[in-house]
Amino acid sequence: MNNILIIGCGLLGSSLLRGIHKKKIAKKIFIYEKSKSNVLKIKKLRLPGIIIDKLDNGAASYDLIIFCTPMSEYKNLILKINNFISSKTLITDVGSSKMQTSKIIKKFLKKGVHWTQSHPIAGSEVSGPEHGKENIFQDRWCILIKEKNTKKKNLNILNNFWKKIGSKVMVMTPEKHDKIFSITSHLPHLIAYNLVKSAQDFEKKQKYDLVKFSAGGLRDFSRIAASNEIMWRDIFFNNSNNISKAIDLFIKNLKAFKRDINLKNNKSILQKLVQTKKVRSKIIKLKQDINKPDFGRS
Amino acid sequence: MNNILIIGCGLLGSSLLRGIHKKKIAKKIFIYEKSKSNVLKIKKLRLPGIIIDKLDNGAASYDLIIFCTPMSEYKNLILKINNFISSKTLITDVGSSKMQTSKIIKKFLKKGVHWTQSHPIAGSEVSGPEHGKENIFQDRWCILIKEKNTKKKNLNILNNFWKKIGSKVMVMTPEKHDKIFSITSHLPHLIAYNLVKSAQDFEKKQKYDLVKFSAGGLRDFSRIAASNEIMWRDIFFNNSNNISKAIDLFIKNLKAFKRDINLKNNKSILQKLVQTKKVRSKIIKLKQDINKPDFGRS
Repeated sequence: MNNILIIGCGLLGSSLLRGIHKKKIAKKIFIYEKSKSNVLKIKKLRLPGIIIDKLDNGAASYDLIIFCTPMSEYKNLILKINNFISSKTLITDVGSSKMQTSKIIKKFLKKGVHWTQSHPIAGSEVSGPEHGKENIFQDRWCILIKEKNTKKKNLNILNNFWKKIGSKVMVMTPEKHDKIFSITSHLPHLIAYNLVKSAQDFEKKQKYDLVKFSAGGLRDFSRIAASNEIMWRDIFFNNSNNISKAIDLFIKNLKAFKRDINLKNNKSILQKLVQTKKVRSKIIKLKQDINKPDFGRS
Repeated sequence: MNNILIIGCGLLGSSLLRGIHKKKIAKKIFIYEKSKSNVLKIKKLRLPGIIIDKLDNGAASYDLIIFCTPMSEYKNLILKINNFISSKTLITDVGSSKMQTSKIIKKFLKKGVHWTQSHPIAGSEVSGPEHGKENIFQDRWCILIKEKNTKKKNLNILNNFWKKIGSKVMVMTPEKHDKIFSITSHLPHLIAYNLVKSAQDFEKKQKYDLVKFSAGGLRDFSRIAASNEIMWRDIFFNNSNNISKAIDLFIKNLKAFKRDINLKNNKSILQKLVQTKKVRSKIIKLKQDINKPDFGRS
């Protein structure tokens, strides 16, 4: 490719920037980043790429534009790029939910312009360009979204792009995507936030210092619950239907657990605790996590 | 000390064994371990200590006995040690809940014999003597339990013992202990088990392969949900009152979260997500976790 534009250069945007540069995927990489403090960081870090102040075609016509901002900013950005974009540019994004984004794109993007969504399963509880890493996508899944009007050609371009970045690629519909990730990602994050919130409520009422004793479990949740609030608000709002259903299933199971505990239902409890263990072995086997106890923390 | 007996030589028992040996806390360390496969592992690993086949005073009179078995085994073991124990031996344990253990001790331990409970805040999702580490207690809290009849002298002995092992020591009542750990440890584990269980239910119904995409959050819970099932059943049963209350608080908060998501209550959601982030910084500051994003997984 000649020119790639990255819109939003935080954790994922700057990781892509580093990856595209390292793998020489584009001749020129342009960056549009509205946060002045992020721009300063990018300059200080001497990251590759050309920072542009205004969203226009001034410097070049882009082969690929990648949205790496919170999803709530897509609409306004679409209205801006509509002024200069043509069907020659392929657009993608790295957002974590897809059905709502699909609606926004259909409603606001200039007709004839192609946007094929991506979702690289990578991230961290820290934000900002200083935390980006070129290998954050390495060996991770990247989901490409196929809809009725999705062009095979564009799926191919993105397939090649993400494979060069280091990802494994899988194609699915926005509906299937949003269902799967409501359980594997959105619910876990919500649960982590909710656990930390409950601990805070408990602490206020009891005046006990809980954090001191957090090593027994709470600390692991606190890491997940430290993730970027704007990004997660957007995900919760965008995928609210599926997340609502996931919450209902979770509460139903939790109430059953509570009953088992109060009735000292040995058989039922042991069955659950043994059953859930198997998922861990499967995750390790599929290389979705490292096999070091406690993540090799000590 | 001259003689220490460790009953149960799994993850924590073998870690204590290693620590006591390294720090030269006792002249002789005895091990009672009923699992034949664990005994084989201990021999193969050439761990220090003398393995005894029968629980009696045969070899020595013990200065300290440390129970490192699941809590459901305490009662039977107490009935056995009652046959040879005297008031000269101090007993302690490493169990994760304290009120129920206190009842068992009062009911079954021979009168005049001293048992002062300990709870070192250390552990892992893996079990067995092969995973023990001498430094697992290093810089971690160890809670000593003070009840009406607890002797200052025994608290002092255990305070010295755990400090030599490397822990920081704090004294509290069984009631306070069980309340605090119902929130910082027992609820988080239950939640992790419940999340993995819910993902399994979802997977069965939808026939999607969730584990493949677990890197987005689920995998971190799966690690916690891989913890020893006997140990955790015992904790859930022993501390059922406090855990029930913690579940109720958790469900109440989760329902509020669901409402906020469905109503797109921006202010309330952002407030919660920002608020919970602060706990993470506090945990890092208090050195209850390392400051590497993603636990430095990559």
